[in-house]
Amino acid sequence: MLKVNEYFDGQVKSLALNNAEGQLTVGVMEAGNYEFGTSQQEEMTVVTGALEIQLPGETAFTTYTKGESFKLPAGIKFQARVNEQSAYLCRYFD
Amino acid sequence: MLKVNEYFDGQVKSLALNNAEGQLTVGVMEAGNYEFGTSQQEEMTVVTGALEIQLPGETAFTTYTKGESFKLPAGIKFQARVNEQSAYLCRYFD
Repeated sequence: MLKVNEYFDGQVKSLALNNAEGQLTVGVMEAGNYEFGTSQQEEMTVVTGALEIQLPGETAFTTYTKGESFKLPAGIKFQARVNEQSAYLCRYFD
Repeated sequence: MLKVNEYFDGQVKSLALNNAEGQLTVGVMEAGNYEFGTSQQEEMTVVTGALEIQLPGETAFTTYTKGESFKLPAGIKFQARVNEQSAYLCRYFD
């Protein structure tokens, strides 16, 4: 059964899947500002829209648009600003 | 509120969104064979995995993999074969 995950009172929802590419989620974010945490190392790719991301120790946000990816270390918190409904693919690494 | 759609007893689930790119869904399909119908013209893009698609009048399936897109006319039924959990982005046109 495909699992639906909800975060931030339903402002972010994702669908989990697993295939040859690995352990993945595809998700949608409402416009807003979020603080996410990672448990595993992750790679996020913007599917549509844009994500502005600030990693720990960074003083500015970097904007990622459709097709662009960024990596997230395990065990961090990071900031995301979203200006319109946007979708992402997240790949989790062991 | 982000809407979750379910089809085929939950074998296919999608999340609806709307942004500068248009009216969209991102979804996940379990492995399986499906017959989908369109009401509007659509463009589907494979986000991860692969979709084998047969449109009306076609005698063979065409395989689309990560990043590849195909267009669907309005008001048709089409066949999809999915060999592993796969995700797609669907864009709807007026």
